[in-house]
Amino acid sequence: MLIVMKPDASRSDIDRVVEVIEGLGLRGHTLPGENRTAIGITGNKGAVDSAHFENLPGVADAIRVTKPYKLISKELRPEKSVIKVGNAVIGGAELAIIAGPCAVENVEQVFKVAQDVAKSGAKFFRGGAFKPRTSPYAFQGMGEDGLKILAEVREQYGLNIVTEAMDERGIDLVEKYGDCIQIGARNMQNFSLLKYAGQTRKPILLKRGLSATLDEFLLAAEYIMSEGNYDVILCERGIRTFADHARNTLDLSIVPVVQRMSHLPIIVDPSHATGHNYMVNPMARAGVAAGADGLIIEVHPCPEEALCDGAQALTLAQYGELVEQVRKIYELVNENTFAVV
Amino acid sequence: MLIVMKPDASRSDIDRVVEVIEGLGLRGHTLPGENRTAIGITGNKGAVDSAHFENLPGVADAIRVTKPYKLISKELRPEKSVIKVGNAVIGGAELAIIAGPCAVENVEQVFKVAQDVAKSGAKFFRGGAFKPRTSPYAFQGMGEDGLKILAEVREQYGLNIVTEAMDERGIDLVEKYGDCIQIGARNMQNFSLLKYAGQTRKPILLKRGLSATLDEFLLAAEYIMSEGNYDVILCERGIRTFADHARNTLDLSIVPVVQRMSHLPIIVDPSHATGHNYMVNPMARAGVAAGADGLIIEVHPCPEEALCDGAQALTLAQYGELVEQVRKIYELVNENTFAVV
Amino acid sequence: MLIVMKPDASRSDIDRVVEVIEGLGLRGHTLPGENRTAIGITGNKGAVDSAHFENLPGVADAIRVTKPYKLISKELRPEKSVIKVGNAVIGGAELAIIAGPCAVENVEQVFKVAQDVAKSGAKFFRGGAFKPRTSPYAFQGMGEDGLKILAEVREQYGLNIVTEAMDERGIDLVEKYGDCIQIGARNMQNFSLLKYAGQTRKPILLKRGLSATLDEFLLAAEYIMSEGNYDVILCERGIRTFADHARNTLDLSIVPVVQRMSHLPIIVDPSHATGHNYMVNPMARAGVAAGADGLIIEVHPCPEEALCDGAQALTLAQYGELVEQVRKIYELVNENTFAVV
Amino acid sequence: MLIVMKPDASRSDIDRVVEVIEGLGLRGHTLPGENRTAIGITGNKGAVDSAHFENLPGVADAIRVTKPYKLISKELRPEKSVIKVGNAVIGGAELAIIAGPCAVENVEQVFKVAQDVAKSGAKFFRGGAFKPRTSPYAFQGMGEDGLKILAEVREQYGLNIVTEAMDERGIDLVEKYGDCIQIGARNMQNFSLLKYAGQTRKPILLKRGLSATLDEFLLAAEYIMSEGNYDVILCERGIRTFADHARNTLDLSIVPVVQRMSHLPIIVDPSHATGHNYMVNPMARAGVAAGADGLIIEVHPCPEEALCDGAQALTLAQYGELVEQVRKIYELVNENTFAVV
Repeated sequence: MLIVMKPDASRSDIDRVVEVIEGLGLRGHTLPGENRTAIGITGNKGAVDSAHFENLPGVADAIRVTKPYKLISKELRPEKSVIKVGNAVIGGAELAIIAGPCAVENVEQVFKVAQDVAKSGAKFFRGGAFKPRTSPYAFQGMGEDGLKILAEVREQYGLNIVTEAMDERGIDLVEKYGDCIQIGARNMQNFSLLKYAGQTRKPILLKRGLSATLDEFLLAAEYIMSEGNYDVILCERGIRTFADHARNTLDLSIVPVVQRMSHLPIIVDPSHATGHNYMVNPMARAGVAAGADGLIIEVHPCPEEALCDGAQALTLAQYGELVEQVRKIYELVNENTFAVV
Repeated sequence: MLIVMKPDASRSDIDRVVEVIEGLGLRGHTLPGENRTAIGITGNKGAVDSAHFENLPGVADAIRVTKPYKLISKELRPEKSVIKVGNAVIGGAELAIIAGPCAVENVEQVFKVAQDVAKSGAKFFRGGAFKPRTSPYAFQGMGEDGLKILAEVREQYGLNIVTEAMDERGIDLVEKYGDCIQIGARNMQNFSLLKYAGQTRKPILLKRGLSATLDEFLLAAEYIMSEGNYDVILCERGIRTFADHARNTLDLSIVPVVQRMSHLPIIVDPSHATGHNYMVNPMARAGVAAGADGLIIEVHPCPEEALCDGAQALTLAQYGELVEQVRKIYELVNENTFAVV
Repeated sequence: MLIVMKPDASRSDIDRVVEVIEGLGLRGHTLPGENRTAIGITGNKGAVDSAHFENLPGVADAIRVTKPYKLISKELRPEKSVIKVGNAVIGGAELAIIAGPCAVENVEQVFKVAQDVAKSGAKFFRGGAFKPRTSPYAFQGMGEDGLKILAEVREQYGLNIVTEAMDERGIDLVEKYGDCIQIGARNMQNFSLLKYAGQTRKPILLKRGLSATLDEFLLAAEYIMSEGNYDVILCERGIRTFADHARNTLDLSIVPVVQRMSHLPIIVDPSHATGHNYMVNPMARAGVAAGADGLIIEVHPCPEEALCDGAQALTLAQYGELVEQVRKIYELVNENTFAVV
Repeated sequence: MLIVMKPDASRSDIDRVVEVIEGLGLRGHTLPGENRTAIGITGNKGAVDSAHFENLPGVADAIRVTKPYKLISKELRPEKSVIKVGNAVIGGAELAIIAGPCAVENVEQVFKVAQDVAKSGAKFFRGGAFKPRTSPYAFQGMGEDGLKILAEVREQYGLNIVTEAMDERGIDLVEKYGDCIQIGARNMQNFSLLKYAGQTRKPILLKRGLSATLDEFLLAAEYIMSEGNYDVILCERGIRTFADHARNTLDLSIVPVVQRMSHLPIIVDPSHATGHNYMVNPMARAGVAAGADGLIIEVHPCPEEALCDGAQALTLAQYGELVEQVRKIYELVNENTFAVV
């Protein structure tokens, strides 16, 4: 914390600030400048609340200096975390591809997609049994029956199941049937759910909230980890902006900054980020080129009949093409001559 | 589908309509109005045939709803809903003022504020026992012990308690100790929580999400109402934008548009919206001038010592001034010569 | 400028930073903390470029501490500037009302509105002769002919003319025919135009850019003032956000912060901010309640026939009501018992 | 209205159509394509009657345009425009790389960078002689002296010069000394400047505004083209959002949508988009992977001493690595097995 004084702050204003700092058991360092004085604070273990200072006489600004991360930080663990998800990993040497339909609709649909996903060499299968829908009158997912279908997919194709939970009961069920628990963008700051997820022993795929800053995203992961579950995979899925040509704005620059600050792997969701079929492949390629550890992609045997988000789902043929392309880019980016970040 | 009853429809006419609705495997939501009763239908997958209702006694009209809204809409209920909260109302003739500290910290702090809030004529007291904090290492609230302190405030000062719940257990507790359950901005699209809140019989204060559009905000209310709890109060508390001079951007234009589309009351939170003490009074005045039905304000006996969000809390003296000013503006705006919207 | 070092920065990393600081003729103040060292910089006259430090080994962050304002700041001039515009003032004891059509279309239209504007007691008349339009194929304004009509309005009604200029030639013409030169939102960072405007001797109404931060807005004013024209009136007209219920999001919290930092008056444009007729009055009231020094309002004798932005124009009757209401609120806000900010 | 000519239409058929257009008091814009020529009509107030054209010799079709776009649209010209810039092209088979310092500071600095840029095989050199700076007190560029240095770079290294103009005088000067006139983000809706640029005969690099929607961006290009200059290159350089980890949010999804709607080439500026050295390479790779036709990159011999935006400039070594990587990705994306969009 740095306290910046107004140019006309008096000596006693400055003394009062230092007094408050010392009252908190901390140390104040007064730096007189040409125009104004600043006071640095040291000795604090966590964040110092700026409220202690902002309204004191003579104070112009209170600036936070250090970041409140612990468990997610590279300072704690300099090498990247490789997260085990079922019988495979995310964050390892291979590009992780998670593919499948937006929602589990019925056995036929799911198996049709699963067959192609398995054939493509992807190791992870997605599909929602619990769907967060803006309207209470929209299709809400098949629930536990959907999870049972997903479990059969694992049985038959050896694909590891990544699927969303929206509440504690959902987490218990996904823990039972699935391999990785997805926390959706709308629940990224559902702190009770994050803590509960931190008590499971299945890995968590944490999607960035629609308006989450980098700090908030990383601290949401910190919530999960602070409860003892260190297996967190981050996912950029587009943020809400004024731009109206895509459903969200895919913010790929978060990939290099996460990799600079954290040991956690980060993947990209070009399907939800764009909302348009024809944008998915270019944005998947871009995500991998930016350095992402994986992709999560919506595929549907017949997008125009999908119960949910059909406009963005790839056909099986488009999915096949995409996999081929992103694998080549991943190889290029991760060749030994490339420094990813 | 909305069924609008004739002004002279009898109780048994209404019951008959609900019976027919339930006979179709659907759910009827009866909202009595000043002049006539309307009955919303939910649970249908496609369109409901109006022929089922048009010739029943007492039915004036069966309206196909094209917007995704049913229960929140002015078509269902043309006059504003007056929501009973404890022994007072929100949405009535009087400006509703909800005041108190951000977090319940201890008995002394709470009672000190409560005394002044009661003296100011406000009828509602706020104070968080469960605090949604960005960092897992920040103060998380006193929990049930905090709720007990709030219950004592009601006992002693007759103030009605508005306090946040973050999960199902929290809702059960607030239902037990409080008068109005607040759903915070970060949980506005926690659909499981909204449904659970819809099953309680205490009124819900629903805060707009940081990046919620008008549609998403109204549909979050619709989630609650579709479960049978029609007592929802909306709250504008600032949205996330690029602007960095305030914590959030208070979006007051949502007040007239909500009042144009919905019968639900809407209040404004200038404390969280701005994050700065000196902005609270101007933005409170602006909110009331824009037509809001109430305000929710943070007050602290000693803001610089607050455990949470002290920078934005008003002192007791500042709070007193604010109340005086906004009451005069409310009177002006609601004089008979004024058409609010 | 404060340089924050990484926890593992070496002694020589720190020494290197101090060396660079001293190489710039400044002074470095090393503050060792429990976890990391920070280095304060003093002795600089203007801003220090963070680029000097950001990529040095061991540097975690370079934080700017002081603001680059001079002429707009309250430190320079503690009392509010009262700007003379023609025969009246903005920023004085009276609420400034600027009203008129979006675009000057013809003599009849302009005079019809001008008559009512004069009758309402407003002292300023608006109307665009040069219209910034998103499409090159939309009506671009009447040009100099439009300015001549505006000059006749001044002649006949004694109203002071506020009108937009989009380029140097436009500034010359408005200087000749009008009383106040408006720089539109899309030109707020057209720095060449700002400098040129700074060389005229007519007051400038500077509208906030669609995505301008507070800093950028104030520095745009600083551009004008640095050329010698100190008569700048700021105008909040809504910012671009994700919210889609209004054309822009009116950001009223900029009013108190501008008044805290600057001596310049600030007015509000509820017409362009909302884009909807029914929102104009509530947002005008809110702007005045927030402490604005004035309003700029679109009025049209027949909004549905307007060549430009008809959806937001008030009818003459609606305008009359608005003036009555905002005057009362202005009085209330500025009564001696009220501390505006 | 667009007039599409038959593949075998003669020169005189085309001339006759333009004659008819001009006879109606309108303007015809002839854009020859690979297979057929199309003629856009502007200057009309309402709809143009297709009967004027349908029976003229060589006319295949007269298409009513419902979108506000005419000249930028793929309907007018289905194949991508290849824009000639000096002795090279943008939008052709080769990835266009424009590199150089943010600002021209002195001969030594510029030549040091130019040598490496030439060696890398890039064909375009950037460097600002006129700098749009948020503060009037920041370095504003060397002006005409800077342009002269750039002209020497062309002389010596055969690099084509891309440099920004901020006003009409600047456009005249860049037309004289440079090969491509850049219109910066802050001037994207400076409509007077766009029209003036439309009257030059040098190609225009048009940067997307900080808060420009797709429509606004394309219509800014349309402004230039409607004046007769059809050589426009679009540039995505990041938009303003709430996200604070990068200077702007690079919105790569605009690449596929522009390519779907328009024949104009689009390039990406990862330097201004991110503001951080370490993000430039990943975002450059991502831009190319998304399908961009080129990149514009800041390079500085000694970033920490740059007078402007040093934090984002690449060193010469980093630039060399970047070029190698993006070329490989471009090849991959444009291999015949790849469908770019």
